[in-house]
Amino acid sequence: MGVRDRVVLLAGGVGGAKLAYGLAHVLPPGALTIIVNTGDDFEHFGLHVSPDLDTVMYTLADLANPSTGWGLEGDTFQAMTMVERYGGPTWFRLGDRDLGTHLQRTQWLREGLPLTEVTRRLCAALAVPHTILPMCDRPVRTCLETDRGRLNFQDYFVRLRWEPRVHRVTYEGAESALPSQAVAEALEKATLIVFGPSNPVLSIDPILAVPGIRERITTSPAFRAAVSPIIGGGAVKGPAAKLMAELGMEVSPLGVARHYADSLNGIILDEVDREFCPAIESLGLRTLAGQTLMVTAENKRRLANELVTWVETITTR
Amino acid sequence: MGVRDRVVLLAGGVGGAKLAYGLAHVLPPGALTIIVNTGDDFEHFGLHVSPDLDTVMYTLADLANPSTGWGLEGDTFQAMTMVERYGGPTWFRLGDRDLGTHLQRTQWLREGLPLTEVTRRLCAALAVPHTILPMCDRPVRTCLETDRGRLNFQDYFVRLRWEPRVHRVTYEGAESALPSQAVAEALEKATLIVFGPSNPVLSIDPILAVPGIRERITTSPAFRAAVSPIIGGGAVKGPAAKLMAELGMEVSPLGVARHYADSLNGIILDEVDREFCPAIESLGLRTLAGQTLMVTAENKRRLANELVTWVETITTR
Repeated sequence: MGVRDRVVLLAGGVGGAKLAYGLAHVLPPGALTIIVNTGDDFEHFGLHVSPDLDTVMYTLADLANPSTGWGLEGDTFQAMTMVERYGGPTWFRLGDRDLGTHLQRTQWLREGLPLTEVTRRLCAALAVPHTILPMCDRPVRTCLETDRGRLNFQDYFVRLRWEPRVHRVTYEGAESALPSQAVAEALEKATLIVFGPSNPVLSIDPILAVPGIRERITTSPAFRAAVSPIIGGGAVKGPAAKLMAELGMEVSPLGVARHYADSLNGIILDEVDREFCPAIESLGLRTLAGQTLMVTAENKRRLANELVTWVETITTR
Repeated sequence: MGVRDRVVLLAGGVGGAKLAYGLAHVLPPGALTIIVNTGDDFEHFGLHVSPDLDTVMYTLADLANPSTGWGLEGDTFQAMTMVERYGGPTWFRLGDRDLGTHLQRTQWLREGLPLTEVTRRLCAALAVPHTILPMCDRPVRTCLETDRGRLNFQDYFVRLRWEPRVHRVTYEGAESALPSQAVAEALEKATLIVFGPSNPVLSIDPILAVPGIRERITTSPAFRAAVSPIIGGGAVKGPAAKLMAELGMEVSPLGVARHYADSLNGIILDEVDREFCPAIESLGLRTLAGQTLMVTAENKRRLANELVTWVETITTR
């Protein structure tokens, strides 16, 4: 059983989906399981919307909108036009084809299927060749205590464009959630566990907050590597840098490494951050400096390959 | 206060909406209130769909699809394309802009607004110049006992294309429903009450099943006229003729007149059915034979005008 055989990636939205894409094109079919944050999930217009699951699914199905990273390429917005005419909320832009996903997910959930099975069916219909798993089937909702009061994730992230200053982040419902059997098995059998370049606090921590997931990771015999979402003191996309600063974390790969330290064996950071390698290594982690900015499909494959090859080199030594 | 000043129309979907359109163009602004059947309402994909309310609203807003009578002209079906890809239910075709209506209605209902207020807001946004009222705010669901078992309305009507043979029709929840204040007031102040050319059993009877509505109609000092949905032994559209026959009713304006007899003062039937006038008059109802087939906008206005003028002639004699 080699490093490549059973790879588990923890992922949020766009950043995690990019690495998922790279790994999906580097690993053998069926070798990749992506455990996706559902702390961003919410009910909108009565529909169950799972933004991160959809971003990963659309990305692996080659349907994602390349200019935004989320949503479907070439989608139309007729339903939203009508909602706007009614004076309804349009801050969360739902494309028409994207709505089809939310409609069918909601339908299946209302029929009593767990989100894991719903996700499996959606992915099968889109011919996604790897396994995408929600972090759990019970609702967990990321909430933020901010200078503008307590906010639900989507209010903070989309409606208020992550402008409020955050004091604290909580994962409502996490304490009573359980990893699904599929998540538990994937972690137990993993030959490599990767923390994607997603927001540590908003994308990865909700996953780790589900009881049993962090324990299965820290006790896993698999190599556990993170890809730093911070490059050159900033985030590639989204509020990771701003939020880490507001929560008193150092905005660098070292800050990321400290945050995950107990759970990791190594971290991949960008060449521009090479200076942080000694400090990270003094935490007991391995480091690899590479090209971590993923713009093109080639970038994604190269980073995925670099990551897997690096872990193979370490673990077979 | 003349006949034209406060007209109440009871309506189902397409047929009722056509007469509503005619009346809306003949009556002074604000003079028309349409009480619409909500026995067809259902939850689909978690959204609250009100087919008859929407048909009447889109028709009066001049947005209806002229070739079907329901849905929005020029609507697209991207969401349904995606649902189809997932193998989901596509028997009820939801257009993308139409979905915008269902999204916003569902949102407002989930915020706790009654359907009457939701309908008022939707109509206001579409600049509908008359009042459209759901028959009540509580859910009433038309159910059919058939040779293929007990069916919900939409399963019977859309999915199974009204093929099953019907033994009995019930209006679940009607006994505990109440007319809204707006419906009660409209009926109490009406100067003319019209039963639209809608399916008597599936569109008008659910309205009459709401406690207090039939009583307010039968005790109203206003003239109460029906427009026969049966022309030349058949229905213009839909299952009215088939269903009336299955329930042992005569499929003619006389059958319609008998069905409503206690509640009506008169009936308008098509010239082709003139032969039924004496028998209907022997029930104590007035009759008017006219051109009741409404194909063009001009047809609709002419029938509406004929109806109102006829009642004026009778009541001022």
